[in-house]
Amino acid sequence: MSELLNVDLAVARIVSDIRPVESENISIYDALGRVLANDIDAPLDLPIFANSSMDGYAVVSTDVEGASDVNPITLPVVMDIPAGYAPKTALKPGQAARIMTGAPIPQGADAVIPVENTDAHWGEAATNHQVVRVFQSVNPGANIRLPGEDVTKGQRIFTKGWVLRPQDIGMLAALGCAELSVYRRPKVAVLSSGDELVSIHDPLTPGKIRDSNSFILSNLVRQYGGEVFNFPIARDTKDSIRAMFDAAVAKKPDMIVTSAGVSVGAADLIKQLLSQMGKVDFWRINIRPGKPLAYGQLAGIPFFGLPGNPVSAMVTFDVFVRPALMKMIGRNSDVPIRQAKLKESVKSDGRRTYMRVKLEYNDDGELWASTTGTQSSGALMSMVLADGLLILPENITKTQIGDVFPVRLLKEV
Amino acid sequence: MSELLNVDLAVARIVSDIRPVESENISIYDALGRVLANDIDAPLDLPIFANSSMDGYAVVSTDVEGASDVNPITLPVVMDIPAGYAPKTALKPGQAARIMTGAPIPQGADAVIPVENTDAHWGEAATNHQVVRVFQSVNPGANIRLPGEDVTKGQRIFTKGWVLRPQDIGMLAALGCAELSVYRRPKVAVLSSGDELVSIHDPLTPGKIRDSNSFILSNLVRQYGGEVFNFPIARDTKDSIRAMFDAAVAKKPDMIVTSAGVSVGAADLIKQLLSQMGKVDFWRINIRPGKPLAYGQLAGIPFFGLPGNPVSAMVTFDVFVRPALMKMIGRNSDVPIRQAKLKESVKSDGRRTYMRVKLEYNDDGELWASTTGTQSSGALMSMVLADGLLILPENITKTQIGDVFPVRLLKEV
Repeated sequence: MSELLNVDLAVARIVSDIRPVESENISIYDALGRVLANDIDAPLDLPIFANSSMDGYAVVSTDVEGASDVNPITLPVVMDIPAGYAPKTALKPGQAARIMTGAPIPQGADAVIPVENTDAHWGEAATNHQVVRVFQSVNPGANIRLPGEDVTKGQRIFTKGWVLRPQDIGMLAALGCAELSVYRRPKVAVLSSGDELVSIHDPLTPGKIRDSNSFILSNLVRQYGGEVFNFPIARDTKDSIRAMFDAAVAKKPDMIVTSAGVSVGAADLIKQLLSQMGKVDFWRINIRPGKPLAYGQLAGIPFFGLPGNPVSAMVTFDVFVRPALMKMIGRNSDVPIRQAKLKESVKSDGRRTYMRVKLEYNDDGELWASTTGTQSSGALMSMVLADGLLILPENITKTQIGDVFPVRLLKEV
Repeated sequence: MSELLNVDLAVARIVSDIRPVESENISIYDALGRVLANDIDAPLDLPIFANSSMDGYAVVSTDVEGASDVNPITLPVVMDIPAGYAPKTALKPGQAARIMTGAPIPQGADAVIPVENTDAHWGEAATNHQVVRVFQSVNPGANIRLPGEDVTKGQRIFTKGWVLRPQDIGMLAALGCAELSVYRRPKVAVLSSGDELVSIHDPLTPGKIRDSNSFILSNLVRQYGGEVFNFPIARDTKDSIRAMFDAAVAKKPDMIVTSAGVSVGAADLIKQLLSQMGKVDFWRINIRPGKPLAYGQLAGIPFFGLPGNPVSAMVTFDVFVRPALMKMIGRNSDVPIRQAKLKESVKSDGRRTYMRVKLEYNDDGELWASTTGTQSSGALMSMVLADGLLILPENITKTQIGDVFPVRLLKEV
């Protein structure tokens, strides 16, 4: 085992090579899921002006001292402040202003009495009171939202690398950020080659299988925020593969990902081309599934040659390509991990092993993992059934029921 | 409290009203995140033919009985089977066939010897051996993937309502499903009204705030797979609101969501219009934030009138609108919940309370929750900082440090 490269070392080498893509300006209307390319500080206070948190009456708090159900205090209503309109005059001691939720507090007032604590009934549209009887005393500041209570001007709201969720976009809208600087989507060329592959629209003649890896890899790229370039399947000839590489390079992608030709068979052709067109190393990694990995640059573009079995291709994408994509868009490449107990005893060969598992909480809230049938790297069904990838560390060859291991989620449970 | 409607009852009433949208056919190239509208059974076996799981030599296993390093057995190599090509003749006893990973096993052969266990070296392209020395005996079936080993013809692969991930799309590609029947995206009209609101491109004059709710609600709809129709902000006049309702209905959406005018202020206008144009109930729900909720049909279209405060709008969307959207696309409306311990003692008023919390695992793998500052329903920053919504059940007014409560995730931790 000693000659196999450690997974974390391989990831660190890859990540250290990768440079973030440039930023681009987008409209706030297109912001969902995009990643901020700079920090954002609040350009203004939120709320920007003192406003009422209730429908009611703005008053001077000392005017209603001692007010109660049995001892109401009556005040003249001198103005009506709907939401959206600045009061034209200040409130004087001894006066009340009808005020709506969100409307600006008039100068002079220091509290709001909720309408429920007065004799007013706003149930019908035309109701208007010239006086109001107040049944409650209030402290200064009651039911008033102060400027900057939510956000103060200059406050750091978002840091570079933040992935925008609905509430984040709402905050940016409240702050008036109509245009945002985000990392542009990394462009990824996804290649397939092999005389055995036919495209989804072609008939399955003897000896052929349908290309599924390019669908898996393309959609992983999209899931992580990238844009995909696809190409026709190359045949196992030097000319066909070279034409595919040339076509990929011509698109000026940020990354090239392919998933065949790293094993002994068609590998020689590809190896020769890679050494002519760039600098690609062939790593043997201490990982299962997925030992062989080609990594380097093709015409200066980061190049990943993943194993051809669909499960191996998906696992090695997750472990090696995803961190590179994350680094390109300024994101932390850590993935959410949960600890789970193994429901069965499993064996491995001492390589770091990513097992496809179903996850289930028991009644005590403990998370338990069980394997999804055969763990053959050709068995795509094991991945379709999986809620997660359980990570068996290096040098573990046998486990007991109940042993705890980290699990990388593939689906929320 | 007794007159307030229970949250779960309200959700159940809403969900029982909602009908799924129709299905539509899409290309497998556009399938990521879409929801299958029918069950899918495998139309063929995977693999479809017996093939080699290794680069090596197909043999008759009895021919190499007793082979070892010190006692190699020599066989003539009578054919070469690259991946993608069906062998033209059967293998006879006493013969070997050079075979690549994934290539069809020739008739007559019942095992594959990996190239490493022979004297062959495939390192250079042109190498071709007329005989091979085998250093290993094998059991029948060794290194052969049998037809149907991954998936058998007729096997139920996906059930209606399945949300398509990269590996699922890879499986559909392998099965040749180029076109898929999925639920079409629900169309949702997201409305804003209020004299206090200005659009993101307009200046903030005194008394005005920027509309943020429509951004939050539109992006929640998109996040859950819907399409959004937006409309200009309506003013607080009957004509303006009626025009907005008419414009929304004219788009024939599957759902209308608005987030203002349910409190006393502008409410009367909207109430009158809703009673003229449809049937909408005003519910007072045992929930915090977000007590008032308007729900019903406007011109026959499900209508949600959410509270105007951004936090309340987002929480009530999550609790009431999301399950309706999920039902429309045939998905389970359960959300992933984790149990977390409260890091602080909190107070509530006995309504079911959705608190905005940060989540953190401690060294023992326990999940702890702490509130994100002020829990005012106007404080959008509390939602921006939140990893989840901690659900404090009804009738709990005070908690202890370490009490365990369910948390609805807003972000992976």
